[in-house]
Amino acid sequence: MSTLGRVKLSQGVEWGLHCATLLVLAPPGATIGRAILARHYGLPEAYLAKHLQAMARAGVLRATPGPKGGYQLARSADQITVLDVVEAIEGAAKPFLCQEIRQRGTGALPAEACRRPCAVHVIMEEAHQAWQDSLRQTTLADIAAKIPTWIRDRNQTLLTETP
Amino acid sequence: MSTLGRVKLSQGVEWGLHCATLLVLAPPGATIGRAILARHYGLPEAYLAKHLQAMARAGVLRATPGPKGGYQLARSADQITVLDVVEAIEGAAKPFLCQEIRQRGTGALPAEACRRPCAVHVIMEEAHQAWQDSLRQTTLADIAAKIPTWIRDRNQTLLTETP
Repeated sequence: MSTLGRVKLSQGVEWGLHCATLLVLAPPGATIGRAILARHYGLPEAYLAKHLQAMARAGVLRATPGPKGGYQLARSADQITVLDVVEAIEGAAKPFLCQEIRQRGTGALPAEACRRPCAVHVIMEEAHQAWQDSLRQTTLADIAAKIPTWIRDRNQTLLTETP
Repeated sequence: MSTLGRVKLSQGVEWGLHCATLLVLAPPGATIGRAILARHYGLPEAYLAKHLQAMARAGVLRATPGPKGGYQLARSADQITVLDVVEAIEGAAKPFLCQEIRQRGTGALPAEACRRPCAVHVIMEEAHQAWQDSLRQTTLADIAAKIPTWIRDRNQTLLTETP
């Protein structure tokens, strides 16, 4: 196994998905402060803020500024997929880097033979699409529905009681 | 979109897949020197060497040392999947980082409520499996079969003519 490997999702993916799922439980119309979200999961608030802002920029969360401000879901929980959250945090760039090496070196193919992406490129692209499709199948509402009732009730209480 | 995103496959994935596909075309039993592979695609030889060594360590290639040494496929091309090559280069570590934040902070769940992975973890794992499954469907023999005949013939000549 190579030590060159570096395919890692940011820890923000876990943070973002859990915080967004927590927001599903917030009372309708309520905004939840980032301090409450950070405390709930024991996260560094300033670093979590970057991820919450990224989710707001991507249209997953709605941010309300000010001392009483905070975050809420930007749309209904069944309209936000896991992929929406992951790409908000990580960006939507494709992970496979194609530098068209088939057009370089002693084996260089002429440009007219390279109008279509090569088989390697296509296969890597299809795998990325399979990953995206998988993450698109689940919404925040689906995740929230899997939370046991006692945890959901307790989280709802925590969200509304914390000042 | 966050600037924190960093999901990128190494450029070695493209290099490794193209070089391995080229080795499918080598005469039976022949080893191809890394200098020939590097020249064929115009790649920096020392850096390509790291990826070729990683593929040898992972059992995808067989390395023969010495001045007349080089690389060949470690097994039949229809027994080497794209996933084998990608994981040889990148490692097989899962990209999703789970730090069990559900057990931290004011919302911490007791350990006995966390015996199974949480929904977020399961979903991220399933997506990674979908990506792996996709890459497992294609072998080096499949890729080589898609190369137009004139390119295959030309590459075979290049591989055997180059000193």
